[in-house]
Parts: sequence; C-alpha cells; structure tokens
Amino acid sequence: MTNPSRIIIKGGKVVNEDCSVISDVYIENGRIVEVGLNLIVPAGVTVIDATDKLVIPGGIDTHTHMEFEFMGTKAVDDFYIGTKAALAGGTTMILDFVIPQRGTSLLEAYDRWRDTADNKVCCDYSLHVAVTWWSDKVKKEMEILAKEKGVNSFKMFMAYKDMFMLKDHELYAAFSQCKEIGAIAQVHAENGDLIAEGAKKMLSLGIRGPEGHELCRPEEVEAEATQRAITIAHTVNCPLYVVHVMSKSAAKVVSSARRNGRVVFGEPIAAGLGTDGTHYWHKDWSHAAQFVMGPPLRPDPSTPGYLMDLLANDDLSVTGTDNCTFSVCQKALGKDDFTKIPNGVNGVEDRMSVIWEKGVHSGKMDENRFVAVTSSNAAKIFNFYPQKGRIAKGSDADVVVWDPKATRKVSAATHHQAVEYNIFEGMECHGVPVVTISRGKVVYDKGQLKTKRGEGRFIPREPYAEFVYKRVNQREQVCQNIVPSCGRGKNVSFFIIGKNLSSYLMNLQVQ
Amino acid sequence: MTNPSRIIIKGGKVVNEDCSVISDVYIENGRIVEVGLNLIVPAGVTVIDATDKLVIPGGIDTHTHMEFEFMGTKAVDDFYIGTKAALAGGTTMILDFVIPQRGTSLLEAYDRWRDTADNKVCCDYSLHVAVTWWSDKVKKEMEILAKEKGVNSFKMFMAYKDMFMLKDHELYAAFSQCKEIGAIAQVHAENGDLIAEGAKKMLSLGIRGPEGHELCRPEEVEAEATQRAITIAHTVNCPLYVVHVMSKSAAKVVSSARRNGRVVFGEPIAAGLGTDGTHYWHKDWSHAAQFVMGPPLRPDPSTPGYLMDLLANDDLSVTGTDNCTFSVCQKALGKDDFTKIPNGVNGVEDRMSVIWEKGVHSGKMDENRFVAVTSSNAAKIFNFYPQKGRIAKGSDADVVVWDPKATRKVSAATHHQAVEYNIFEGMECHGVPVVTISRGKVVYDKGQLKTKRGEGRFIPREPYAEFVYKRVNQREQVCQNIVPSCGRGKNVSFFIIGKNLSSYLMNLQVQ
Amino acid sequence: MTNPSRIIIKGGKVVNEDCSVISDVYIENGRIVEVGLNLIVPAGVTVIDATDKLVIPGGIDTHTHMEFEFMGTKAVDDFYIGTKAALAGGTTMILDFVIPQRGTSLLEAYDRWRDTADNKVCCDYSLHVAVTWWSDKVKKEMEILAKEKGVNSFKMFMAYKDMFMLKDHELYAAFSQCKEIGAIAQVHAENGDLIAEGAKKMLSLGIRGPEGHELCRPEEVEAEATQRAITIAHTVNCPLYVVHVMSKSAAKVVSSARRNGRVVFGEPIAAGLGTDGTHYWHKDWSHAAQFVMGPPLRPDPSTPGYLMDLLANDDLSVTGTDNCTFSVCQKALGKDDFTKIPNGVNGVEDRMSVIWEKGVHSGKMDENRFVAVTSSNAAKIFNFYPQKGRIAKGSDADVVVWDPKATRKVSAATHHQAVEYNIFEGMECHGVPVVTISRGKVVYDKGQLKTKRGEGRFIPREPYAEFVYKRVNQREQVCQNIVPSCGRGKNVSFFIIGKNLSSYLMNLQVQ
Amino acid sequence: MTNPSRIIIKGGKVVNEDCSVISDVYIENGRIVEVGLNLIVPAGVTVIDATDKLVIPGGIDTHTHMEFEFMGTKAVDDFYIGTKAALAGGTTMILDFVIPQRGTSLLEAYDRWRDTADNKVCCDYSLHVAVTWWSDKVKKEMEILAKEKGVNSFKMFMAYKDMFMLKDHELYAAFSQCKEIGAIAQVHAENGDLIAEGAKKMLSLGIRGPEGHELCRPEEVEAEATQRAITIAHTVNCPLYVVHVMSKSAAKVVSSARRNGRVVFGEPIAAGLGTDGTHYWHKDWSHAAQFVMGPPLRPDPSTPGYLMDLLANDDLSVTGTDNCTFSVCQKALGKDDFTKIPNGVNGVEDRMSVIWEKGVHSGKMDENRFVAVTSSNAAKIFNFYPQKGRIAKGSDADVVVWDPKATRKVSAATHHQAVEYNIFEGMECHGVPVVTISRGKVVYDKGQLKTKRGEGRFIPREPYAEFVYKRVNQREQVCQNIVPSCGRGKNVSFFIIGKNLSSYLMNLQVQ
Repeated sequence: MTNPSRIIIKGGKVVNEDCSVISDVYIENGRIVEVGLNLIVPAGVTVIDATDKLVIPGGIDTHTHMEFEFMGTKAVDDFYIGTKAALAGGTTMILDFVIPQRGTSLLEAYDRWRDTADNKVCCDYSLHVAVTWWSDKVKKEMEILAKEKGVNSFKMFMAYKDMFMLKDHELYAAFSQCKEIGAIAQVHAENGDLIAEGAKKMLSLGIRGPEGHELCRPEEVEAEATQRAITIAHTVNCPLYVVHVMSKSAAKVVSSARRNGRVVFGEPIAAGLGTDGTHYWHKDWSHAAQFVMGPPLRPDPSTPGYLMDLLANDDLSVTGTDNCTFSVCQKALGKDDFTKIPNGVNGVEDRMSVIWEKGVHSGKMDENRFVAVTSSNAAKIFNFYPQKGRIAKGSDADVVVWDPKATRKVSAATHHQAVEYNIFEGMECHGVPVVTISRGKVVYDKGQLKTKRGEGRFIPREPYAEFVYKRVNQREQVCQNIVPSCGRGKNVSFFIIGKNLSSYLMNLQVQ
Repeated sequence: MTNPSRIIIKGGKVVNEDCSVISDVYIENGRIVEVGLNLIVPAGVTVIDATDKLVIPGGIDTHTHMEFEFMGTKAVDDFYIGTKAALAGGTTMILDFVIPQRGTSLLEAYDRWRDTADNKVCCDYSLHVAVTWWSDKVKKEMEILAKEKGVNSFKMFMAYKDMFMLKDHELYAAFSQCKEIGAIAQVHAENGDLIAEGAKKMLSLGIRGPEGHELCRPEEVEAEATQRAITIAHTVNCPLYVVHVMSKSAAKVVSSARRNGRVVFGEPIAAGLGTDGTHYWHKDWSHAAQFVMGPPLRPDPSTPGYLMDLLANDDLSVTGTDNCTFSVCQKALGKDDFTKIPNGVNGVEDRMSVIWEKGVHSGKMDENRFVAVTSSNAAKIFNFYPQKGRIAKGSDADVVVWDPKATRKVSAATHHQAVEYNIFEGMECHGVPVVTISRGKVVYDKGQLKTKRGEGRFIPREPYAEFVYKRVNQREQVCQNIVPSCGRGKNVSFFIIGKNLSSYLMNLQVQ
Repeated sequence: MTNPSRIIIKGGKVVNEDCSVISDVYIENGRIVEVGLNLIVPAGVTVIDATDKLVIPGGIDTHTHMEFEFMGTKAVDDFYIGTKAALAGGTTMILDFVIPQRGTSLLEAYDRWRDTADNKVCCDYSLHVAVTWWSDKVKKEMEILAKEKGVNSFKMFMAYKDMFMLKDHELYAAFSQCKEIGAIAQVHAENGDLIAEGAKKMLSLGIRGPEGHELCRPEEVEAEATQRAITIAHTVNCPLYVVHVMSKSAAKVVSSARRNGRVVFGEPIAAGLGTDGTHYWHKDWSHAAQFVMGPPLRPDPSTPGYLMDLLANDDLSVTGTDNCTFSVCQKALGKDDFTKIPNGVNGVEDRMSVIWEKGVHSGKMDENRFVAVTSSNAAKIFNFYPQKGRIAKGSDADVVVWDPKATRKVSAATHHQAVEYNIFEGMECHGVPVVTISRGKVVYDKGQLKTKRGEGRFIPREPYAEFVYKRVNQREQVCQNIVPSCGRGKNVSFFIIGKNLSSYLMNLQVQ
Repeated sequence: MTNPSRIIIKGGKVVNEDCSVISDVYIENGRIVEVGLNLIVPAGVTVIDATDKLVIPGGIDTHTHMEFEFMGTKAVDDFYIGTKAALAGGTTMILDFVIPQRGTSLLEAYDRWRDTADNKVCCDYSLHVAVTWWSDKVKKEMEILAKEKGVNSFKMFMAYKDMFMLKDHELYAAFSQCKEIGAIAQVHAENGDLIAEGAKKMLSLGIRGPEGHELCRPEEVEAEATQRAITIAHTVNCPLYVVHVMSKSAAKVVSSARRNGRVVFGEPIAAGLGTDGTHYWHKDWSHAAQFVMGPPLRPDPSTPGYLMDLLANDDLSVTGTDNCTFSVCQKALGKDDFTKIPNGVNGVEDRMSVIWEKGVHSGKMDENRFVAVTSSNAAKIFNFYPQKGRIAKGSDADVVVWDPKATRKVSAATHHQAVEYNIFEGMECHGVPVVTISRGKVVYDKGQLKTKRGEGRFIPREPYAEFVYKRVNQREQVCQNIVPSCGRGKNVSFFIIGKNLSSYLMNLQVQ
C-alpha cells in the first residue's frame, strides 16, 4: 500500500521559469524534498509516471472573486467550487479580493472573507484588500493588515463611481500609504466619470444591450486611467500593479512605462487572452451577456494576440482571470439595461489551457515563460517565492503534471465551475493538466477530483517583496541629495525620481 | 505729401504659408487691395521698400494675459503697453483670456475685459473665455458668448485646484457644450491634484525656491492631463486645443493623438521654444523666479529643440506666449515660498524673433511654415482666416516687413514691455521686424512706434470654424447607424467615434 | 455663341488647400484670370454653374507608367487613353517615369519618352527619370536633365535585382548627385535581394499563384528598404521621396523620420488607399492577378485606413496611382509563375474619387486637405506651384467642378481606361467630377470627353524646388563650423546633420 | 590544513536570476555540490566567510578579442593576461571570436584559435566563429563546427567593407545555414557602404582625428543595419543576436522587434553602458583614440542610461565588452588618419563593476537582474545553462563573492590588463569582487590572483539551445499549412512567420 503523502513523479521534464530538465521530483509531507535523477526514496511511495509530460509549478490565479456579492447578486462559484475547478485546471492557488463597502472597516471585511474562505478552499489562497474609500482609519487599517494579517497588496478602483471609485488625491494618499507599509498598489484602471457619462448617453440613445457595455467605456477610457495611475504611483515611488489589462492601448501604456524604468506590472487575464469583445454584438442576448465584465473585452480581434505578444515579452508580467461568475439568470438582471448586468466571467479553471494554447502552442512563448506568467511571477510579486512558483527542493508541493500534446475541448458541459456557460466554449486547447498535486497531495488525477473543502490554507504575505521593492528602495536611497542648493541656501536632501535631472543640472551654465 | 492710408510695399518677397513670391502689396484703408507686380496705384501713396526683405502676415499671439489680476497682484503689461510691444515685435493681433472668478458670471467678466481692453489696445485683439466653474448658468452663458459675443473658444483648467480647476465630469460637460455651440475647447493640462500634493511635499522638505515649482509638477503631470483631456474630448467628439505644451512627453501625447485622427491642436509658446527650466536652479533667486510659469519650463535641455521639431512637422500647430509679466518685486511675493511666486513670463514682443531664430534660421522649418505657426494657423483655428493670417487681396492689412538676415539681441534694456527683465536676455536673433503695419497703418518703422491707445479693434469670431469643425461634423454625420441591431431589436442610430468598430463587426462570425 | 476659351465658373465653393470660399472663377486663354464675386467678364463667356459644387484644382497624379514596356509586354493604357481617363476622373496632369534599360543613356530614354508622349497626351504631363544603373555618364546625364530638360526628380530602385536595382554605394552616389543638382531623390523601397530569395523559396514550395507575390515580399521587406533609403539620403542631406508606400510599417518609418526632421515625403497610391492584398488569395486566378503590383498590397485589412490616417495628418504627403495596366491576357504570362505576372494596377481615373470616399467622406480629412494631397503638394514638391495646384489668379486653368454629394459606382464597364477590369470594381464613391477643365478648355462635361491627342503639354520643372530645398540649404549653411577643432588643430568647417551634436559638445567636460 | 578543492562559502546571500537567499554553498572538485543552510561538510574544507556579501555566478563575458591581429597590429591582452584580468573583475568565462581571413577556412582558423587559447586561458572559455565570406565550403564548415566542434554561434559583419562584410544575399544564406544547423546568427550591425563613404568624406574635409571616427558612422548607420539584419533573419526564421548595441536608436530597433515577437537578443557592452562618445572630441589625441571602437560610442550623453534602462527591462539581454586592447603606440598608427586607428577598447576586467554601479547602485535593476545580464542569459543563449550562470547543485563552481557596499576606483594604475590606459579611468564603482572561484578553485582573493595559464577549459556548446530555439521550432511546426489553396489547386504546406496572415484570410470575402 502506498503512502499518499510520499509521492515521486518520475521521468517528467521539470519546467521552471529559467530552464527545463528531465528530473524526478520527490514529495513528502507537502513539500518538495528532492529534485533530480536516481533519487533514493522510501518504499511505498506513490509513483506518478510523467514520461513525455511536463512537471510544472501549480498555477497561481492572481485575480478571483469567489462568491462575491456584487450588483445585487452573488457570484455562483464559491470558494469551494471555485477552488475545485481551479485544481481541475492545474491551478493550485488563488488570490481573491476582500472588497469592503464604502465607509466600512477593511479589517472587518478581511475577517469576514477569511471566515468564509478558510473552511471552503480546496487549495491554498491569499487575499488582496480593496481600498474603496479613504480616511485615517482606512490608512491605519492598511498598516495593520500589512503588519499583522499577511496582506501586501491593496487594490484601488478608478471606476465604479459613487461605489468604489477613489479620486486622484485619494489615490495619491492610498499609494503613499502602500509605499509606506511596503505593499504594492493595485488599480482597476478605467475612468469612472467617463463611464458614468457614457452609460447615460447609451441608454438615452436606446442602446440597452450588452454592446452598450463596451460602447460606453471604449479602450481609451482604460488607457487614460492606466496612464494616470502610473503617473500618480511614480510621484510617490510606489510600485504599481494594473489588474486586468484588457486593451492594446492600455497594454502599450504599461509597456512604455516599464521601458522608462517604472516599477509597474500588468496583468492580462484569461478572458482577454483567449476571446474578444465582438461577442457583445451576438444576436443572442444571453450569449452576449456572458462576456460582460469591466473593463470590457475589446471588439478589435487582434487584441488577444497583441496582449499575448506583450506577455511573452515581459511587457506584461502575470496572469489572472477575474473569475466572477454569474448565471444567465443573474445576468438577466440587466436584460433591459446593460448597466445592470452583473459584471464577471469565468476563467479560473481554463486559464492554464487557454494560455498554453494561445501562448505556447502558437509559438509566442516557450514553456518556461509559461511557468513564469502563470505561476512564478505571481509568487515573486506577491512575495511567496520560491515557496510557490518553482519546482525546487524546499518549495511547497503544488505541482502539476502537464501533457503538452494532449488536447481538450473547453465546454460548460464538462467543466467543474458552477456557472452553466463558458466564455471559451468550444475552444480546442493543447495542453492538459493530467495530475494536480496540492500541498503534497494528489487532488486531481485523470479527470477525477479528490479533494475536500477546507484543505487549502491561507498564505500570509510579508510586505516589501524583494522582487518589487529592491529597486524602489535603492532608488530612494541613491536619489537623495541630488538637488543642489542652487547657491541659495542649505542643501536639501530628498528623493526625486526624475532620473535625468541631476545630469541636466550638472551641466548648468546658469549657476 | 503721401497718404498714410495708402501704402505700397515694393520689391519684397511675399511669404504665405503655401509659398513665397516676389510681389508688391498695395494697401488702402486697412485692407490689402492688391498683390502682384507692376501694380497701378494712385499718386501719393506711401512707399515702403522691401527689397531683400520678406513681407509676412502680422503675427498672431494666441495666448496673452494683459494686466491680469492673479495670485494677489496684477500683470504689469497692460493692454496698451502689451500691444505696443507686440507691434514692435511684428505681432499685430493678440488673443487674451477672460478669466472669471469661480462662481461669477462669464458674461460680466467678458464685459469687464472688453471695457478694459477696447480703449487701450494698439492692435486688433480677441478674447477666449475661461470656464472656471460649472453650472447651468455657465452653460447658458457659453452659448450667449458664442452666439452674440464673438467667442468661439473656451478654456478649462485641469490645474489650479480649488481656484479654477474643473473635475473630469465637469470637463465632460464643458466639452459637450463647446461641441454643442461650435466652439473649440482649450485646456490648461496639468493634474491639479498632483501639483497640490507635490507642492506640499516640497515645502515640507524645506524646498522653497523656484526649483520647487518645477519639482512639484514634473512633466509627467502635464502629459497625464493632456492624455486625459484628449480622451474626454474625443468621447464627445469635441475639438481640443492644448494651450502651452511645455514638455516632450506632453507634446508626444498630442502628436500621437493627431496621428490617430483626433482633432486636437497643440500650442507651444515662445518661452518653451526659446529657453528651458534649468534656470530654476540659478543661484540668483530673482533670475530663477523670472522663469516661473505654469506648466513650468523643463530642465531637460533638449526640450526646446524637440518642441520645435514637432512644430515644424505639424504635430504642434500654432504658437502663443502666455505673456503675463510680473516685476521682480511682484515675484518676490514668493520669496520664501515658490507657490506664491506669481506665475508668468514675457514673450509677446520676442515670439516672432525667437521662433525665427530657433526654427527657421536653424533649418528646422522654412519661412512658409513660420508664417503658418505664427499667424495663419491661429487665424484658421479661431476662425478669422483669411481675414488675417494671409497676405492676399481682401485681407486685413496686418503686415510685417521682415529682415531675415538682420540680427538683434534681445534685452530688457531695449524691449518695449513694462517688465524690467527678459527671459530671453542676450539671445542673438536672426529675423528682425523692420516695419509693422496694423490695420493698414504703419505703426512701427525702423525702431519707432507710431501708435496710440485704442487703435486696435475687437475681432469677433463665429462658431464652427471650418478648419476645426469640417471633420468633426462629417464624422458625426457619417458615423451614424454603424451599430447594427445585433439581431436583438431595432437598429440604433447614433454617433461612434471608434472608427474601426464597423469593420470589426462586419466580419462577425458570432452573429 | 460662347467663346470656349473664356469660361466663368459661377456660384461654386472654391477649395484651396488653405481654405474654401464661395467665389466665381474666370478663365481666359488657359489661365485663371480672376477669382472673386461679382466679376466683370466679357460677353459671350462660357458659363458653368457650380452652385452647391466645389471648384478644385485639377488632380495631379504623381506616378504613372503609360504604355510602359515591362516584363515582356506593354501596358495597355497609352498616353492618349491614359490621360483621357485621367481627365474623366478629375486629374489634369500626370507625372510619368522615363525608365532606361540598364546600361543605356538616360537622355536618349528621355527623348524617346518625350517623342511618345508629346503627341498623345490629352493633359499636361511631366517626367521623372529613373536611374537604373550607375556610371559617370549617368551622373553627367542627370545634370543635363536637371539643367536643360526640366527634370528635377530621379527614381532609384532598391528592388528588381539584376534589372533596375542599385546597390547601397550606388544609391549613395545617386543621392549625392541629386543633392548636387537640386533634384529630389525618389525610391522604390523594397529589399531586392530578399525578394529574389523569397520568390525562389515560394516557387520551390510549389506556391506559384498570385498569393506568392505577396508572400515572397512581406511588408517588412518594404519597411527595411524605406529605413535604409532614408538613412542614406540623410547622410548626404538629400531630400527623399518614397514612391508607393504600401504598408503600415513602411508608412510608420516615413512618419517617424519626418518627426525627426528628415526631409522625406511619402506617396501612398490609390490602390493602397482603396483596397487590400487579401485579393491575392481570391479563388479566381485572374481576379487575384489583377492586383499584382510591387510592392504588393497588404493582406492586413486595416492597412488602407491606416495609410489614410497618416495621409490626413501629413505624415504622408501626396498621392499617385502607379497606373500601369496589363490586360488579363498579359497577366496570364504568369499563370504558372507569379514572378512572371506583369506588375501593375489601374488607378489614374479613379484616384480622386477613391480618396474622396475613403478620406473625406469618412471624415478623416477635409476638402482642403484633399486638395493638398491630390494636387497642391505634388505641385510644390515637383516645383510647379502655384502654376498648378491652386485656384488663384495667374495659375493654369486646370480646374475641376466636383460634386461632393453625388455618387458613382466604379466599374470596368464604364471606365475610360483600356484595361478590361478595375481593382476598385463595385466601389460606391461619393465625390464625382462633373466638369474638368484642362488648360482652360472644358474637356470633360457631364460624362462626355471632349479632348484630342496631343493637347497636353510637357511641363518642365526647375531644380531646387523651394518647398523641398529651403530647409536643406539652410541646414547646410547653418551647420557649418559646428565641429570644434578639439584643440588639436585647425577648426574644420563642414556640414553635419546630427542636429544635437553641437549641444552635446558644448557641455564637454573632456576638452 | 585545508583542502583547496573543497570549499564552503558561508553566510552569504546567494543571488540567482530568480531570487536571492541567505545560503551556504559547498563546492567540491569543481562543482557546486550543495546549496543550503547547515550543510554537513567534510573536515578540512576551505571556508570563505561571505557574511554581508553576495554570492553570485561568475560573470560571463560574451564578447572578447584576445590577442586579435587586426588593422596591422595585435591586441595586447592575450588569452593569459586577458583571462587573468577577467578573474580579478569577477568574470569566470569569456566567449572569444574566431575570425578567419576572407577566403580562408573556418575550421583552420578555429583550430588556430584553439591552439592559441587552450594553453593560456586562466578561466573557461568558448568560441564564436565569424563568417567573413561565403561559399559552399564555408557553409559546410559551419555544419562541421556546429556538429563536431562545439560552436553554435556565428558572427556576420555588415561593416568592414572589402574585409569582412557580407552582402545581403550572403547574409540571407548564412542566416539560413545557422537556422539549418541550430546555431544563432550574430551580427555586427553597421552599414559598411555608408561607413566607407563617410570616412572618405571626413578625410576629404580634413577631419583626421578620432572624432572623425564617429562622424563618419553616426548612429543611424547602426540602426539601419540592425533593422536590416532583423528583417533578413526573420525571413528565414533564424534567431539573431546583435553584438555591441551602441546607440539609442539601434537599441530601440531591437526592442521593437522583440515586442513584435522576433527572436532577437541585443548585447550592450561595458563601454557603451559606462562611458560615451564625447571623448572623441577630447583635446588630447591619445585620450580620444583610446575610445575608438566600432560601432563608436555615441556623443549623446544620455545613451548609457538609456541602454541600461533597456537592459534592465529585458529589451536588451546580455552584456559583453568587445575587449580588444591596443596600446597608445598601436593606436598611433592612426595618428593622422582615424581610419587607421586600431579599433578596440578595454572592459573584460571592469564590466561587472561598471554594470553594478550604473545599473544596480543607480536603482535601475536589482541584483537578480544583474546576475541575469552578466551571466545567466549568456549561458542560456549560448547553451551551457545551468552548467554555468547559476548557483545550484550540480553547476560548475564558477562563483564570485561580491561586496555590494565596497567601492573601488577604476584605474590603469591598478588594473590587471596589459593596456596602459583604461576608458573608465577614475570611475568610482560600488560593487567589488572579493573572491573569485573558477572551476572550484579560489583564483582571486583579497586582491591576489592565484591562477596559472592553461587552467581554463574550452566549453563546447551544443546546437539548438532551448532558450533560443524552442519558439523558433514551435513556430515552424505550427505555422505549417496556413496558406489555403485559394481554391486554385493543391493546398500548400509551408512555413510563414507573418503571424496574423491566417486571421486576415479567415475573414476573406473575396474567396
């Protein structure tokens, strides 16, 4: 009889972000104990044959909203079903969002989310916290969350006016606080004022269907906010993470900022990489409504390929799903008014396969970059690398055996999510998870899920993630003192980011 | 005895924006009556010999603030001195700004400005009106100004928080109204929230000198707002005019938008084209303070050349000065706090020479483009072309005889402005106005001014300038009906700017 | 009885590149005598009513190959038929290319072309001359052509290896000579080596149909050569004109160069603005073959709109057609081998309507820009402005009455060209020429052509076109002396284009 | 007594490209045996205390020319001195270039280089081979080198006309062969024709000093060739490596190509990252001449910072030095003619410190990216990762103990290279190598070198480096069959890179 907590994966090609090597992987008590060939292992270990397969770090979905109460209803994937589906798709960790109501306590909301999730999750998870309003109390609670609760990422909304949206000076304050406490600022980047006006206009014109959702917030509304967020963050030397980059123009903004040295990360999502916004014009309302999310998918059909190119090239860094699923009935709340359609799509189960198909199978990226964008980079940015995100001695045993040649057809008929449709319906994907191991246990094997609720753990995260903050801190330190006194008084020591300033001034003839 | 209202300019090279031709120009009663060779003219006409000289349309300064009350004091160039100086420099028309206090009537402010200026101006002028707050009354007054008062341009501030700044939804409303009444929206594009925060930070760090003025509002603060303004204007299909483009990054934003078909015009100013922001670090406080204006000049010394390249290439369209002069004493209001230094620089007199020197003499643009950017394009955008901006039969006789070989050295010692310094002090400029004719009268000749107060006239301007609105209107008309009914109901007819949408949807397989 | 050489066009809106004015136009003996309202004209003039119509300068097609002997056959539109068709379409002048065989005299080829054309042309024309090989004799003949024969533009091929293609050092020499004699260098910009290799590869793979034509020379092959030509031209400070810009990437190269101050002009053609390269994959070989030209049309369907955007924005300057028509039978020479399909498309008749439809009717440009890109800019670049390209007193009476509201459907069934197909077949175009006046004579009126062979004249062109050379010469003059002696010897005076060099060196600490 | 082949490095922070961890490193017999804390090691091991230090993979210099015979003389750093200096600077492997004379055997040249180097090198090394002419024999020899001699990278020159330069069709052939044999193509990207013409011009103008070297080959000459090389390589789906990227414009070309999915790598060098081309104007000829290399350093002083930004952002990938040192006497061969100054600079010793100072200390990149660009990426691209380029169990023990806080001043007075000057003279660098371990042996310790000639080994390299070829091969495989038969014949199966072609054609209405 084999010991289920001792597993050896044999004969596979171990894929990390830096390279791939044929190796066995030995797992014991939830950890990877050894990686190599000809390993000496105890008798009775469970053997998984991975010949001709890849052995990859379990996927990390950076962006989910399980059982989220939103727009008058509640997402149908709860933490249990959602994480089960994740495991079936090769994802072994999710990062969900705590979203307090305007005016309410962040800490209380955090506790509520923990209470809900802890007993349901089948895989490990962690929590971002949204800052949906601003006050001294909020500021203080952010500090507590960072210091005591394992939260190092806070999300601010530039959209959802009068609900979650912060104004520019509040963004400035929130980003400043993130910087102060060593967190990374996240933004939903869309201009909420313009969306509000656009929606009014569409409705006044009699456009009430899902296409109105995109028409009222075209991609420049996203690009504008992205540019603005980067500008504000840079002003306070705060690292920034742009959630769900959905358009070519927004992605271009992120890409240019990175070239200029900004510490900014862009997150495309499975929906944006795998499908597009032409669906909003589909004749069948319920089909069209499935795709409604914010920011919307874009009708320019070259968008997914473009986002994938940038993801391959590290202009974009990491992938999530914004998984927030509402049934067709729930979507029907907005049958006669697109502004009332609950926003959200599926993705948590199919993300890995969609990215493999569109990214790796297409030749845009290799298997190592695949690991980076589906797992390692998330772990680095949110500060639990190499605990997760790498197949290495000492890492958590979140491992997937991946068959790069096998194909499967995505379908609501076969998926494990609670929602009755799938925005990728019918997509033929190369790249199939054969076995998923979570916390050292086989939880998915040849199509069978073997997990139970509450088996996952909350992963607390320390502030000052090195991957994010090393440059930030170094700049702050080095950029001291660069403003000369102008011969007019004492030398002033402070931080400027404007990197070329000193060189201009060095040549000053005016002094 | 010669008749001063009949003038023939002989032997010069007449330079219009499209070409240059050796021609005589005959002027009578304030108008150009004929342009050609061997003209038959009455006896006794005043003859001006322009051999080896250029004969150009008088300069039009799109941006002045004469005797503006601002930051607790009042600009020293009033409409009399300011326009005299303009004439001495080859500029024969200015466009000044009516700037009502927050909460007060636009019409009353307009009347006040007219009362002040009408009796003082030595050259023709017109007025932009600033929208410094938003209400139904403001909206209504904009319409009256456009229909009855000759105003077709309204300026909105994105900076000067709590003083003039509009929020995004107010910008949306103001731009919508501009579009409605056929006006062009103008913006001062800087993020006022970020400036306010930046200024606080600088002061808290003990940086109180003029360099703090630039440090608290680096160029990305300008670029961000420029991008935002273009996005909002595009949403409502309103033509946009960005006043004082001061930085490479803001200019790049304008340039990219134009390539994408946006109806947007960028206005660099003489200060930005002729000098740079390293001066803010000058040891001598009073020297540094002279250069304080908003948005600030940039310390990157390649900025002026870059702006000139874009101006030459029609990425930027037209030039003003933001002439708003405060004496050193007035500047000293901010001796210990840069936020209190009255913002403003000189330029109205030197603009033409500075642009000739840096633009034409350098080989970046030719004499025809010079005429376009100093005169013709202003007349087109603000809708008084070819009344002004062209040397042609029937046009106003605002004409300058320009010596492209002569040089002069700019200096406060010799200029005609009221202020006791000059930000271009010492600049050797090729290109000197020899004779200036305003409204058919020689008002400046060989260094002598011959004008008197009140000789200029207010130039009312009609809405729907063709140069600006032809494309706007055509798009609105053509872009009707392009959203298909999606098979889900009635066809909806409305305007979308997203120009490629129809082509994407034409190929829709989802329908 | 009316006098056919005296014509008054009444009530129309006269459209020039700078503005539009309701005006009458009076024509006498081939010239425009007066433009204005209430003109006093002799009795018996021919009156043309242009109420609600536009009166525009006749179109100038910068790029035709009438009766060109090429690839073993001869274009079916000769100078007679081709220019008749031009007039029917509102074009009153063409610029054709003299293309000598490798190794033969340019002068003799020029004479031959003149002999052929002079007696056939129905409208005015001029000639570019191709430099298809290099030698001292060629160099000398270029000078003679420029000084004595009215040629100020020379075209060099970077494609057609072993036939017309010049190598880089020959391009350098040819561009140098252009600069020396005041001509503008024109290039066919494609990498001929890569095309040759690509064609071999396609054939070896069994791809022999028209799609192989595009596949063997994708757009990057065009962009590469465009970049190279601009680099070489800049090295010798020679103005450059890129004929037939066919792709987004090549257009982007031209656009960027212009922003950087390069004196370069890009010419898109009617085919590239009105249709695309997906046709090469058409099932019907003969349909596909009609579109074969070099550089090819591009399969990316967003290409035409993109090129039009850049044309509207003055990133591209002027339009031609590359009209070079071969019948389906002639095309069939390449039935089994795309490399043998004679290259060429139609366009001379439809250019004006296609550009109006795709450019003006779509709202991308206004009527004034339409005149600039179809007529005025050509006249400026090739140095016969304002003789042509403008409705003004003294200009040639090449005038078109244009109905912007009327539509016509393009069809080979109704066109006047000799070829039996039309690449724009079925295109519904707004914008119809109602009356065409060439050299002061009505030659096309309500669908009737009234012209005869040989009525057109050759238009000689002077070197040193001001529009092109003013900046070139000024730079050369100003950029003297900027290289310091480095303290190591005598000061050296010479020309450098590297515009910022002096500013870098000014700050040199190393000296 | 300690065993010198058993080393434990204790207490340091082990820095790999993906993260940094406090760990001990145990080395035995040239290999890293274990990395971790509390390692159990034999008695008598050599202990190195690395507390507060970094433990990094030894640097890999991708680009050296030791004792290269060139321009009539021979580089003074031979393989012995050069590799000793490398070790002193923290570099434990170099890649040198075999450069056969035009017309001679590649294999023989390879053997000669091996003979020379094998007995002299103090650290491991490998060899790129230059393809300086083209023939079937060359083609065949490339294959032998790849299959039997451990060479998987071949360099082609686009400069050095009539000496090494290949023409475009030869580049096409050489790149095709690289692709065929699984090698990476390297290019020296400058337009040799333009350089030749430029040099003639400078000399004819009397410019004979080192400044003429840059003036005759300005950066656009480099950017042009870079664009051309990328175009050609892409045509044959061959991966490309651009050696010594020296200018902003060339770097931009590489960066854009990568965003578009091209498999291309750019290599900036220490000289280009650490100093600039203003030195060519230095009054002292011998100072100026030290900096002469091709492509030249650029006079735009913002170049180094820009290149470093792109290196930090993975737009550029890896760093070398082009170390090729000539004494002042040798440089004096070109005293009166810059074209005769032997081209080459130092760098092999200082590269690591220069990049740390300008890249890491400045805050542009973190220590992990430093390891990537100085070591890991080189190992990946040239296919000996993770044998080298990583601190990991099983890797070669090429390890450096690096003190990030210590500083040293670069000077010829103290460096270990043979040349008597140093282009970084006086540069204060943070980041100092304290101990260098090569092949498991301490070879440099507290300023003392302990190495002897011939201790290094040749590292053969397999073709088809995964890092480079995975995407190349996948694209080739997937892009089969995408050209439809057009209904005109058999379906053709072949490779097209034009990635969007199929999507365009899918929507074809023309079929």
